[in-house]
Amino acid sequence: MKLDLLKERISREFGTPAVVIDLDRVDRNIGRIQALCDAAGVGNRPHIKTHKSPVLAKMQIAAGARGITCQKLGEAEIMVNAGIEDILVSYNLIGAARSGRLAALRRHADVTICADNPVTLAAYAEAAAAAEAPIGVMIECDTGRKRAGVETPKEAIDLARIVRDAEGLEFRGLLFYPTESGWDAAQRFHDEAVAGLRTLGLEPGIISTGGTPNLPNIGKLVGATEHRAGTYIFNDRMMIACGRATEEDCALHVFATVVSRAGPERGILDSGSKTLTADPGGGLDGFGHILEYPQARIGAFAEEHGFLDLSRTNERPDVGEVVRIIPNHVCVVVNMVDQLIAVRGGDIVDVLPVAARGRLV
Amino acid sequence: MKLDLLKERISREFGTPAVVIDLDRVDRNIGRIQALCDAAGVGNRPHIKTHKSPVLAKMQIAAGARGITCQKLGEAEIMVNAGIEDILVSYNLIGAARSGRLAALRRHADVTICADNPVTLAAYAEAAAAAEAPIGVMIECDTGRKRAGVETPKEAIDLARIVRDAEGLEFRGLLFYPTESGWDAAQRFHDEAVAGLRTLGLEPGIISTGGTPNLPNIGKLVGATEHRAGTYIFNDRMMIACGRATEEDCALHVFATVVSRAGPERGILDSGSKTLTADPGGGLDGFGHILEYPQARIGAFAEEHGFLDLSRTNERPDVGEVVRIIPNHVCVVVNMVDQLIAVRGGDIVDVLPVAARGRLV
Repeated sequence: MKLDLLKERISREFGTPAVVIDLDRVDRNIGRIQALCDAAGVGNRPHIKTHKSPVLAKMQIAAGARGITCQKLGEAEIMVNAGIEDILVSYNLIGAARSGRLAALRRHADVTICADNPVTLAAYAEAAAAAEAPIGVMIECDTGRKRAGVETPKEAIDLARIVRDAEGLEFRGLLFYPTESGWDAAQRFHDEAVAGLRTLGLEPGIISTGGTPNLPNIGKLVGATEHRAGTYIFNDRMMIACGRATEEDCALHVFATVVSRAGPERGILDSGSKTLTADPGGGLDGFGHILEYPQARIGAFAEEHGFLDLSRTNERPDVGEVVRIIPNHVCVVVNMVDQLIAVRGGDIVDVLPVAARGRLV
Repeated sequence: MKLDLLKERISREFGTPAVVIDLDRVDRNIGRIQALCDAAGVGNRPHIKTHKSPVLAKMQIAAGARGITCQKLGEAEIMVNAGIEDILVSYNLIGAARSGRLAALRRHADVTICADNPVTLAAYAEAAAAAEAPIGVMIECDTGRKRAGVETPKEAIDLARIVRDAEGLEFRGLLFYPTESGWDAAQRFHDEAVAGLRTLGLEPGIISTGGTPNLPNIGKLVGATEHRAGTYIFNDRMMIACGRATEEDCALHVFATVVSRAGPERGILDSGSKTLTADPGGGLDGFGHILEYPQARIGAFAEEHGFLDLSRTNERPDVGEVVRIIPNHVCVVVNMVDQLIAVRGGDIVDVLPVAARGRLV
């Protein structure tokens, strides 16, 4: 059987734990969100924090994405170096090292960055001066998640005014990540902020919404020009739990080996918190879903051990058996490894470096 | 002030988040456990999973450690390559890739490995045959933690018999990791197992105990010949919580920058679950202890954002401020980064690669 052969090759040629992606499913996931954006008349700007791979980013662009979103300057550096030019960094870039590198990066690409406070804007103006080139800035707006982002339209307008008046900065637009129930609040925030911006003579060229959980809401914000989603390219247990994906949409599996069966109702995988991560996935039961033993529970971790509770399953794996795991949160699992093994039609076809991993700044 | 200058240099030259170790404290921590082992007449075999650095492993050996413990074959490969020869891998190494690499490694060093089942032993015998050199094996014994390890002395004896009779394998001893209240159980297990081994003509050369939480118990197991502890070199919030370390014993800090203060009672650090990890540290409050703002709580994460709850603190940081964090669990934090910035006397003196990180097999 093809799957057994694949497991055998992964185990022999790479060893487990191995992070394996199915490119057929990746293609399908990329196509699905592109179609959703196209249908809504909204640009697609996928977030590459999920895969950190220029190869996969270029597949997203080839399918119709207008550019990409990064969460770190170091990720943007890798992507610019790989030839990708239309990049939004959705982060407050603060600190001397970042300003210097932002200036250097600006000489190679027209990167757009985000701000929710004046300190950040001052750093951006410094970088623009050093680069001798204007830097585009979006204002990040919070509409209920209490993450980054100004809390009121007035603050957004005040920051946009600083951008307008600062030497070297260009106002580009507004960044939102509405909660699932928060689209009315986001609309009110948007409408009030845009009205205020217009009194300043500013027109937001980009109105960005975000999130794979928000896929059904693409285009819902009247005025939105693009959407940024990351997790959808692979999906995970969280996306299954919130109804955004099925098991068949999950394009990334951790291949793990059963290395111990010291008791009848327990076993140990060679994938612990240094592989699957302790991310609870917003309250999921255990730390991953084992396709071959759906009733088995990865109940606890050591760093290189995943402890299996087999009390609820009659089928139990033997020592040496290789299983496939859908992780709770795929973005943090990719960040643990240096390579993704790529499969197509059940065959290993490529090994993709997680090139933008470990970029600290 | 020296600390301010250090923060400024870290921020300017490396950027945050940065993982910084204080070598003065590292020296002190290394010396303390070596003295405990010496006083107990027990060998010291530190676990390098915590730091994954050959430089630090060699500091431990220079201070008196008889060798090191690794949790992965890939870690052992890096350490052997760096010239360290006395290595115990405390893991069931299963899978074709591992057997082949174990054989290759055996040609360069006399690595001792562990087993809790016969499948593993068969793989080791294959590796020994391929290497044309004997491979030393310890039997891992569980005495209550329900991690890896056989559950009864009889199983340990049965496995030791297989080792004795297998071409190419050498019986080396028994591996324990007693629970804090489980030393009596470990002693009974040990005594019964050793008596049985002697009837087979086997004498355990190594009786190994483990764990930084067990530092006060070094030498408590009558018959123990060595102890393996990892976390003590840096310590963390977990070690403070269990009384094994003080804040001043913590030699590793994550330097992070406040990148947003969108509300009066909240703030955002540039260190999220991809830096500090979601490890709850066995039920600690929040995801790290901020030295400058001990009442602030890192209550939640995005991947590159740590969300600060400032409601309990009157002193609150400004955007741009750099703070130092003691993480919940230091071993998993080191595993997130590619380098450790080393400080001595408050000055940056070295940058240590986390050389054994990302070794999957």
